[in-house]
Amino acid sequence: MNLSQEFANHCELALPPWAQPFLSAWNEPLDGPAARMRLAVALSAENVRQATGGPFGAIVVEERGSRLIGAGVNLVTTAGLSLAHAEMVAISLAQSAVATWNLGATGPAQLVTSCEPCAMCFGAVPWSGVGSVVWGARKEDAEAAGFDEGDKPADWAQTLEKRGIRTRGDVLRQEAAAVLAAYATGDGAIYHPEKN
Amino acid sequence: MNLSQEFANHCELALPPWAQPFLSAWNEPLDGPAARMRLAVALSAENVRQATGGPFGAIVVEERGSRLIGAGVNLVTTAGLSLAHAEMVAISLAQSAVATWNLGATGPAQLVTSCEPCAMCFGAVPWSGVGSVVWGARKEDAEAAGFDEGDKPADWAQTLEKRGIRTRGDVLRQEAAAVLAAYATGDGAIYHPEKN
Repeated sequence: MNLSQEFANHCELALPPWAQPFLSAWNEPLDGPAARMRLAVALSAENVRQATGGPFGAIVVEERGSRLIGAGVNLVTTAGLSLAHAEMVAISLAQSAVATWNLGATGPAQLVTSCEPCAMCFGAVPWSGVGSVVWGARKEDAEAAGFDEGDKPADWAQTLEKRGIRTRGDVLRQEAAAVLAAYATGDGAIYHPEKN
Repeated sequence: MNLSQEFANHCELALPPWAQPFLSAWNEPLDGPAARMRLAVALSAENVRQATGGPFGAIVVEERGSRLIGAGVNLVTTAGLSLAHAEMVAISLAQSAVATWNLGATGPAQLVTSCEPCAMCFGAVPWSGVGSVVWGARKEDAEAAGFDEGDKPADWAQTLEKRGIRTRGDVLRQEAAAVLAAYATGDGAIYHPEKN
């Protein structure tokens, strides 16, 4: 077969240059849902301010400790990869850090995301090995800002619970939703395959 | 914050070394669903033979032409990334090749996968910009081989159709399912967060 010249053998997910200094400067211990969410929401806001992607942030943290294992922001437009949602980036970088696809291998891990996961990120949760998921803004907040959350089962949170993955929503919902609303009224592009 | 020493800034999705020569040597034009599926299934089988991941293969191809835009195999265990399903790899490498997250930007593209997409890969389809999805083995074939397909809406294919994404299953189902069955009776690990 004549492969097209631009055929790609690999691709990369990489945090923007601002992320590591931003995380290093973060002083608050990640010792509870609100403290963890403050960082996830701060990442979502900084991602917009730096113009490196959509208004979404996520972290993976030790469930019972406070160690940050991975962090992510939405990088769809800058990485040119539709899978580069904040949750997918945080999960993948956490897995790279612990050198296994199973984030439960070295003790319970928690995914904390500034917005309720979309259909893809919801589907990714059970495969990642995280023991719990915490989100801030709701699907309707994302939709009010023009984003599409995809088609999840109506009882999506319960399906996670049935798999032994604990769920908790509405943590700092107002703060998280405010970042979405500000993005929608600003000049940040909301990307849709249909519109390109 | 004291970031853990092993904190990761980036990670990579890369095809195994055998893939590019394998694709270059493939002679059959990708001019219809069965021809395309033969390549996706061949990738799934070769991935097992080479011990580079689970028994799943996928390609992204021009819908109306026959140019291969991207290819993927399951790389979960070898990449250490739970998102590295064949479909996600094929979509991401295709997006890298065309330098945009929107695979519809340069004409309709088709995702052809050896097995019905799991909940994550189903959720990823609308974000990728592909215009159609074709699969071989069914969910029940994957489950019979010990794999978990996750929790999709019961009408998942119809939700794609409603978004204007055409779907077609059961293309070379027997051939695709045979690779799954052979894997299950061989010594390839079936990975579950619960079992690690």
